[in-house]
Formats: sequence, structure tokens, C-alpha cells
Amino acid sequence: MATHSLFLLPGDGIGTEIMVEVEKIIAWSNAEGLTDFAIDTGLAGGCAYDAHGEAISEDDMAKALKADAVIFGAVGGPKWDNVPYDKRPEAALLRLRKDLGLFANLRPAICYPALADASALKRELVEGLDILIVRELTGGVYFGEPKEITDLGNGQKRGVDTQVYETYEIDRIARVAFDLARTRGNKIHSADKKNVMKSGVLWDEVVRTVAKDYSDVAFNHILADNCAMQLVRNPKQFDVIVTDNLFGDILSDVAAMLTGSLGMLPSAALGAPDAVTGKRKAMYEPVHGSAPDIAGKGIANPIAMIASHAMALRYSFGMIELADKVEGAIASVLADGLRCADIAQDNRKTVGTEEMGAAILAKL
Amino acid sequence: MATHSLFLLPGDGIGTEIMVEVEKIIAWSNAEGLTDFAIDTGLAGGCAYDAHGEAISEDDMAKALKADAVIFGAVGGPKWDNVPYDKRPEAALLRLRKDLGLFANLRPAICYPALADASALKRELVEGLDILIVRELTGGVYFGEPKEITDLGNGQKRGVDTQVYETYEIDRIARVAFDLARTRGNKIHSADKKNVMKSGVLWDEVVRTVAKDYSDVAFNHILADNCAMQLVRNPKQFDVIVTDNLFGDILSDVAAMLTGSLGMLPSAALGAPDAVTGKRKAMYEPVHGSAPDIAGKGIANPIAMIASHAMALRYSFGMIELADKVEGAIASVLADGLRCADIAQDNRKTVGTEEMGAAILAKL
Ligand SMILES: CC(C)[C@H](C(=O)O)[C@@H](O)C(=O)O
Ligand SMILES: CC(C)[C@H](C(=O)O)[C@@H](O)C(=O)O
Repeated sequence: MATHSLFLLPGDGIGTEIMVEVEKIIAWSNAEGLTDFAIDTGLAGGCAYDAHGEAISEDDMAKALKADAVIFGAVGGPKWDNVPYDKRPEAALLRLRKDLGLFANLRPAICYPALADASALKRELVEGLDILIVRELTGGVYFGEPKEITDLGNGQKRGVDTQVYETYEIDRIARVAFDLARTRGNKIHSADKKNVMKSGVLWDEVVRTVAKDYSDVAFNHILADNCAMQLVRNPKQFDVIVTDNLFGDILSDVAAMLTGSLGMLPSAALGAPDAVTGKRKAMYEPVHGSAPDIAGKGIANPIAMIASHAMALRYSFGMIELADKVEGAIASVLADGLRCADIAQDNRKTVGTEEMGAAILAKL
Repeated sequence: MATHSLFLLPGDGIGTEIMVEVEKIIAWSNAEGLTDFAIDTGLAGGCAYDAHGEAISEDDMAKALKADAVIFGAVGGPKWDNVPYDKRPEAALLRLRKDLGLFANLRPAICYPALADASALKRELVEGLDILIVRELTGGVYFGEPKEITDLGNGQKRGVDTQVYETYEIDRIARVAFDLARTRGNKIHSADKKNVMKSGVLWDEVVRTVAKDYSDVAFNHILADNCAMQLVRNPKQFDVIVTDNLFGDILSDVAAMLTGSLGMLPSAALGAPDAVTGKRKAMYEPVHGSAPDIAGKGIANPIAMIASHAMALRYSFGMIELADKVEGAIASVLADGLRCADIAQDNRKTVGTEEMGAAILAKL
């Protein structure tokens, strides 16, 4: 079996604690001969700033670029609230996305049946929910130039960001979304603010052109504000939602929160297939953040992190069977009644990070 | 009593139907000698395009600029989906906001007790909800330049919008929000994406400076994506949320949807007080749209429109007692069990636009 390389960036806060549980699963699958992962670990976010004064070192960036897949924990915390802007923890994430060309962010929002009651929404609105948000991740207002604060004198400043999309960027994310829709419910909503944004007008024009190549997929346009509303009103009307970087940030958070299982949701960020090898760069990451308030207490839920690793098995390594097995193990411990503190329920057993990791491993 | 001028722009779709009910209330208050409104009516949106090929005529813009307050219905509909960009129905709204200098958009999200069950959220999460979103309305990505689509050749185009804020724009909206917080729960959340946007960094810097002048108001910073999440998770943690034009668009729609009473929510858009007269330009508008699907059926809920008129009485004319009376009449018909189709409930009487308007009038 060819050796596959994984680069782990646990990051800050609970990131380090939940990554440990992924390492145990990798150790198990290697020991069983199911995988042959070579593992390296680096620093990203606040811990990297503390170590070398940058959100991520050049060395670790080089390793991320060489790895078959990056497994990312979470970054940030109040400790680094006042570091210089380009060294803040999030800068690591943004640079990894940009330099690895990870333009396609897959954010599933799935409501685990066992957890439907944990949602703020009424059970019948979220039970069985299965939405996939496909967020553009390397363009838009996150990276457009100019992006600056100018001093105008007289105590006045001007802050500018630039929302910019080119045809090819919209075309490729739309194709990823339509391809994925075909493997699911065959329905797409494309969300933008074309009623006020020119980038939205172009977005819609390009997505509609792509839609013609997928006449078997039901296509719908929706304004981003209405999409946010409809996610709350009746989320099950959605299958795949494709949208830009900024709207994707917000809409995927709303969708994730609907499920009542934020600590359970993984995500994947994928690059374009290499012209020669067909391989795509990829980074896998839980949807939740570094949760500084509960860091170090051993109570963080490792499920989103483990599910992110399962996504890596599926999307980067084609190990469908093993991915299914890991996801099955997660569903099975939930069915057994195990919960972490974030999803604690009456009549269910609340366990810590390690115990949850061990329970999942035991199922494997 | 001085004559006050109201300029009515019913707009498209249900806009015209619900405005009729406001006109009846004005006729009543004039007849009772409680008000002395001089009324004029114009065209905005698709109907204006059909009449003169523009989303709003220069003539009507001049009237809007002269009026003490503009009462706006709703614009848009599939009929105008393909009109040129600068003539689309929304252009009327954007031009009114910009040319009247209506930088402060007040969007209350109130959960009427009688309607708590209509929310997608569990009753205990929304019962008693009372959030005020203060949205900046004349800046940001809505109006920043460049805003254009450029042809790059080879089938490639580039769409650009510019998110821009200057210190004074942030300062004045923050002060409106803090002043309003003082009249309510004394708590503010300022929402931005300062972790990725320079305009967000400036936004936060200026709002924090203003906060120092309001040390009695509890100040919180929140990232816009987290704010969207928290609105779903636990909306009652919020009192006043101040945010920019684009985030305000989305967050206020989420907040409105939480209440289960979209057809009930009014909004106000206010300008700066005139240096000499102290008067501020203002436009009042329901949060919901033109609902083309139910237009012409006589079933649209006129409550948001009538409540918008009540906001005009309160904010533009200082007629607090009359405003209270109109709002009380709305609460009272709801308590009586009257509902429009949008909030129809078992064991409650579903009535049409006219009947609802008449019932409110009867209470006055
Ligand atoms: C941490 C932050 C830069 C990031 C983003 O805005 O993309 C996060 O919110 C996310 O959604 O991954
Ligand atoms: C109609 C549209 C231009 C408008 C906006 O985006 O501001 C609407 O969504 C609103 O919130 O008033």
C-alpha cells in the first residue's frame, strides 16, 4: 500500500484535545493494516504566533503544501485578540485556504436523529435534515484588493474591502456543487444578493450557465437574506446550497446551528484536481471553533473532528468503506446514548473527550 | 395644528393592498382631528417602471424629499426580473435610502405572545423576544464604488463590489444604536467580520470609541457569523444589535423570521436631524416583501404596514399617544383571535386584508 501523508494542525483551544482522538483512530487503522498514514504535526494559529511570531511558519506551510491532506483543529482565543492583524490566528486558516487553492468548502448540516431535540427548532422541522452547503472559499471579500484602512486626517479613516469574483471561480465552484447534488437530492439553490451586488449578478449569470449542463438537477435562485430566513422557517426545503465566501460563512453557520449538533459537524475544503495526477489538495476541519471557554477541561466533543477525518478518508483517499465504518461508529455511540457536554440530555450518559474517543474506537 | 405631509409609495404586489388600510387609518385620525396629514401618493418599483421606464420618477423623488415622512409598501415581482439593472424595482428603494440620507434602519423583531407558536423555534426560546436591529443603511457594499462587471475577454468577466465605511458613518449609526439601547435593555452587540475584513476592523474600533460615551450600556462585540448562529440558538440574549448594511440585511431577516410574525414587523429608516429644524427625513416600511404569489387575492396581512405607520407617528411626529393607540389596537385584534392567512392558527379566525384593517380601525 502506498504511504499517504497527513499533516495535522491541531491549533488552539480544544483543537489540541480533539485532535488526540483522531490520532488514536489513525494509529488503530495503521496497526490494522487498513491504512498506511505517515503523520506529521505542526502549529497553526495562536500557538504558532507564540512559538514563532507568525500565525503559521513557512516550514509548516511547506509541509501543508506537500501533504496529501491537512487535518485542521481550530484556532483563536482571547489571548491573541490584540496581535497584529496579519498575525492573528485566523490568518493561518486564510493562508492555508488560499495557498493550497482550496476553493470548494463542503459543509454538511445533518441532524442526527438521536439529537433532533437538541435543536432550537421544533423537532419536525429538523428531523432528518440533510443539507450540504458548498461555499466558495478562496475568493470574494475575503481576499479581494484593495483591503485596507486609510487615514483621511481629521480623525477620519476609511476601511475598504473588495468583493470580487471572476467567471472561472464561479464556474468551478458551481460544477462542484452540481456534481455533488447529483449524488444526493438533485436540487440546488444558488444564493447571492444580485439585487444589490454586481458580483452577485455575475454569480447568478455563471451559475445559470453551468445549470444548463445539469438539466437533471433542479435549479433555484434565492437571495441570500431570504435563504437565511428560509433556513430558519423550513430548512428541509434545501438539498445543496451553493454560495460565495461571505454568505457561505454565515449561511453554513445558521444551517449548522439548526441541527443542534454543532460539535458534530465536519467540513472539507478541496482544491482543483491536479492536471497530471488527478489528486486534489484538501483540508478537513470541524465546523465549530476553538471554544476557549471549555479548553483544557477534557470535555470538548471530538465527534466533529473525527467526522472530519472520516471525510478525509472518503474524499482524499477514496477509502469509502473505512469512512463509512468511522461514521457508523459515531452514529452507533450516539444511539447507545453517549453524549458530550455540548449535547448533554436527560437520561443520556455525559462523557468527556477521551471517553467519547475511546467509545468510537471500541466500535471500530 | 401644523399640516404634516406624508408621501405614500405603495409599490408593487401586496404593497398596494396593505397601503389602503393605512390610508383608512389616516382618514380616521384626520377626521377625528387627531392629525392633520396632507397625503400624496406616488409610484415606486415595477409599477413606476411600467409607467415611466424608471424605478422611481424624478417627480416622485422630489416629493419624497419634501415630505415629512415617506410610507413605503413593497417593491418587485417576477414581471420585472429582466429589466435593466439600474431600473429594477429595488433601485427605487436604494435611491430613496441614499438620496434621503436614511442611514439608520431600525428593525424591531418582536414576538407577539399570541403568535409564539407560529415560530419555527421552540416557544420558550422566542416567547417575549424583543430585539432591535440597528442596521446602517446608506453605506457599505450596497453603495461603494467600484461596483461593476468588466469583460476580460475569452469568456471571462470580473464582478466587483466595494465594501467601504468611513469613521463618521460608523460613529453616527453607533450613536443611534446606543441611544436606543438606553431606552430599552441597555445592552448592545456590535456585529462585524473584523477577523477577515478591514472595514470590520474600523467598524469595531469606532463602535468601541463610541461605547466609551455610553458606559452605562453593556457593550459586546460579536462576529457576524456567530451572531447569526446565536440568533437561532438563544435569541433572547440580545437587546440591540448594531451592524452594517449587508450583515444587517441578513441578520434582521433571521431575527424577523424567529418571531414567526414576518407579516407583522415594521421598520423605520431615519436620516440625520436637520441642523436648523432638528427634523429628520424618514421612511417607514414593512419588513416583508411584495409577495407576488398572494398579490391581488385580498389575503395579505396589513399589520406590518399599519405598524410601520405607527412608527412614523412615533418617530417622525412625536405622536406617542396615537402611536401607542394604533399598536394597542393591533395587539388587541390579535388577542381577540383574528389572524391573516400568513399566521393562520387552529381555533382562530382567518380574515382577509380588508377585514383585518377594519377590525384594527374599529378598535381605534
Ligand atoms: C475563522 C474565520 C476566519 C472563518 C471564516 O470566516 O471563514 C470561520 O468563521 C469559518 O467559517 O471557517
Ligand atoms: C430589496 C432589497 C434591495 C433590500 C435590501 O437588500 O436592503 C431588502 O432585502 C431589505 O432588507 O430592505
